[in-house]
Amino acid sequence: MSERAVVTLEETLAALAEGKKYTTLRDILVTMNASDIAAIFDDFPEAKLPLLFRLLPKELAAETFVEMEPEAQELLIRGFSDNELKEVVNELYVDDAVDIVEEMPANVVKRILKQADPEMRKMINEILKYPDDSAGSIMTTEYVSLRPDMTAEEAIKRIRRTGVDKETIYTCYVTDNNRKLIGMITLRTLLLAEEDAVVSEIMEENIISVNTLVDQETVAQMFAKYNWAAMPVVDQENRLVGIVTVDDAIDVLQEEATEDFEKLAGMTPTDKPYLRTGVLETWKSRVPWLLILMLSATLTSMVLTGYESSLAACTVLTAFIPMLTGTGGNSGTQASVAVIRGLSLGEVEFSDLFEVVWKEIRVAVICGVTLAACNFVKLLALDMHVFHTPGLTVPVAMVICLTMIFTVICAKTVGCLLPLLAEKIHLDPAVMASPFISTIVDVLTLVIYFQVARHILQI
Amino acid sequence: MSERAVVTLEETLAALAEGKKYTTLRDILVTMNASDIAAIFDDFPEAKLPLLFRLLPKELAAETFVEMEPEAQELLIRGFSDNELKEVVNELYVDDAVDIVEEMPANVVKRILKQADPEMRKMINEILKYPDDSAGSIMTTEYVSLRPDMTAEEAIKRIRRTGVDKETIYTCYVTDNNRKLIGMITLRTLLLAEEDAVVSEIMEENIISVNTLVDQETVAQMFAKYNWAAMPVVDQENRLVGIVTVDDAIDVLQEEATEDFEKLAGMTPTDKPYLRTGVLETWKSRVPWLLILMLSATLTSMVLTGYESSLAACTVLTAFIPMLTGTGGNSGTQASVAVIRGLSLGEVEFSDLFEVVWKEIRVAVICGVTLAACNFVKLLALDMHVFHTPGLTVPVAMVICLTMIFTVICAKTVGCLLPLLAEKIHLDPAVMASPFISTIVDVLTLVIYFQVARHILQI
Repeated sequence: MSERAVVTLEETLAALAEGKKYTTLRDILVTMNASDIAAIFDDFPEAKLPLLFRLLPKELAAETFVEMEPEAQELLIRGFSDNELKEVVNELYVDDAVDIVEEMPANVVKRILKQADPEMRKMINEILKYPDDSAGSIMTTEYVSLRPDMTAEEAIKRIRRTGVDKETIYTCYVTDNNRKLIGMITLRTLLLAEEDAVVSEIMEENIISVNTLVDQETVAQMFAKYNWAAMPVVDQENRLVGIVTVDDAIDVLQEEATEDFEKLAGMTPTDKPYLRTGVLETWKSRVPWLLILMLSATLTSMVLTGYESSLAACTVLTAFIPMLTGTGGNSGTQASVAVIRGLSLGEVEFSDLFEVVWKEIRVAVICGVTLAACNFVKLLALDMHVFHTPGLTVPVAMVICLTMIFTVICAKTVGCLLPLLAEKIHLDPAVMASPFISTIVDVLTLVIYFQVARHILQI
Repeated sequence: MSERAVVTLEETLAALAEGKKYTTLRDILVTMNASDIAAIFDDFPEAKLPLLFRLLPKELAAETFVEMEPEAQELLIRGFSDNELKEVVNELYVDDAVDIVEEMPANVVKRILKQADPEMRKMINEILKYPDDSAGSIMTTEYVSLRPDMTAEEAIKRIRRTGVDKETIYTCYVTDNNRKLIGMITLRTLLLAEEDAVVSEIMEENIISVNTLVDQETVAQMFAKYNWAAMPVVDQENRLVGIVTVDDAIDVLQEEATEDFEKLAGMTPTDKPYLRTGVLETWKSRVPWLLILMLSATLTSMVLTGYESSLAACTVLTAFIPMLTGTGGNSGTQASVAVIRGLSLGEVEFSDLFEVVWKEIRVAVICGVTLAACNFVKLLALDMHVFHTPGLTVPVAMVICLTMIFTVICAKTVGCLLPLLAEKIHLDPAVMASPFISTIVDVLTLVIYFQVARHILQI
């Protein structure tokens, strides 16, 4: 199913809506997946949207609603009667309801909470208490809990009775009288066990749980590591308060990767898709870093002004500045991105500092020597004998190539150190990426270049 | 559970192994999770590894084996008797077995296939036929299939009977007499339905499946979009041949994000963790892009040499080259990374070209003007009146600021265009990232700079 097909289908649906062919519309919509319907509804003419939404059967309506963009959700809610809102809200899973509440303006939130069942309202308010991006904020409180003295048969009966409202019934949690988490059991184990097997004897007792306040990215990375379908969330007293399910973990992993990409490129993360972000919003997310980096480039100007006499004595040096700073920037970026990704995958941590630096220095030495050697050949063969670059002599070529080696070593050392230091002082390592490293490396490169030039060329 | 805790535990286990306290060792290991045992085994002294591995109960042994690094796996296999190998191999899920087979040298593969049960061998060979990174290559053939005329009760009985060897029993697939996929049903639906409900009446008929040859990244993105636990894989005739499960989809999403990060920083992707990649291997993955970019910087040298007379007439221009190329590079990188991530999340596609370019141009104009204005104030207030930069006049400041505006516009246009064009000609858009864009933007910036300077300063 390509995105192109969705676009064409959208036009068909718009035409049907225009022509008031509601039965046909309904017949088409019920064959579709909630995510795809949501994608179409997001771009649908506002006036027709509530009408179309009302065509959906109750359950599909709730599923579709969850997948829509906040703008379209708000539009729909404002158009809902109290009864309609009640129906949609109480059909939602509580973690989805919380996501929606968090995006809506205060007066809409008030209406939603008023229409929610008391039980639902209590759960929403409970989850809203947890800090942004914590395990508590992405968990759901709708899980199956079992008692340790139940038999497999009783447990399955309980699942059949209470399962319809639970986000997952495949992983169930065993708690004692104080709601303390004592075990975990999958529906698979229950179903494949003897009917009279006792839960406490077949459950998994070595379970890993997370505290409500743990960062959501840590939780998501644990899913990637342990291949689970759900993870229990407990409070300070080890009482079970909720679960995080794998679908939410995937969303977190995707979001966090996107955030890292944006930070890497010097942008403030936004949580909207690219084409839905307005021009001013995009400007706001991009201009601060550009400004900071532009202003910090004052340093490179000062270095260049400081060495003006050397430059005047040997003007050909100017021609190779962008190549040297470029190669330095690229080398530093490679090291920093490798370390940043390693940190966010949990493969590298601050205590590996010496191992990382030692590795980068060795890599830098052979990279630097390779580049310098190739460059030397190229300078002599191409620039001197083909292009006849004025002022380019063998000593100048040596200055350029020596600078190359030192620059690559400095760049890779800075590149791997900065993200590790950022991690240590609890800054996001991703901020220490490409643009930031390049600015520092530019200054270092220029200082190295002119110092080497002064020594070798005596200028 | 921090990584630091794992390290200490590792030392304890090593000490226990040294002291031959096997009962204690076993007692500790069985309380642990397969992923954590594997992390410890990967770094364990080679000589003690087979002994420790033999302490694990059969199922935990297989789970741990799957999570280990290929080097440690190979070491263990070489130490296994035929019988031990048989036990481990036949305990594996077929997709995990395939992953292992793909990493082993030919003689080890031969031994593995020889010890596999005929059924297992057949499945392994079937999956091995599919191209790398296709849906077929990551699927498992161990799924539950049901007939449309079964009742819910019969279906559950069948799941209980055959489920023990299946990778998941929570999503079951309904096929007709020709193995064609006609529906999907979750264990949840079966369990919550009346016992005599007929599968064909309660199954989901609108199912999305993927062809065996679809790219694994596309499959993984569909998991992120549709929140599924498993996805059916069909052949050209719509016959069900396997399923992809969500845990494998997460692995693919993580791998693909890491690959994009590496490409973004001009590195050839490796599939090993950062600290496990050797120095030479790291060098090999990094030096090609550095070389290409260094050599293509010949262009910037040529531009600078070409405008040597202008530079000589107004030497202060040199001081601002790194700031201008740096800002250009950063602006271009922002646009390219935003588009690359949008493409890989499926939010942007080639047909959005005009919308994307139009957006980037508008963003670039206001970014450029903001930067130029700030820069103008800074040049006049700081560089002229505080630093007294020699040769810096108001017309020169105007040249710098006008160049800034044009550069940002060019950089953002190039930055968003290149990834889209790469996608169109089926190149990986991620290759068109930061380092590549910077090199092109450097050249453009310099040409703009000197053209503007010639016009305004008449040099």
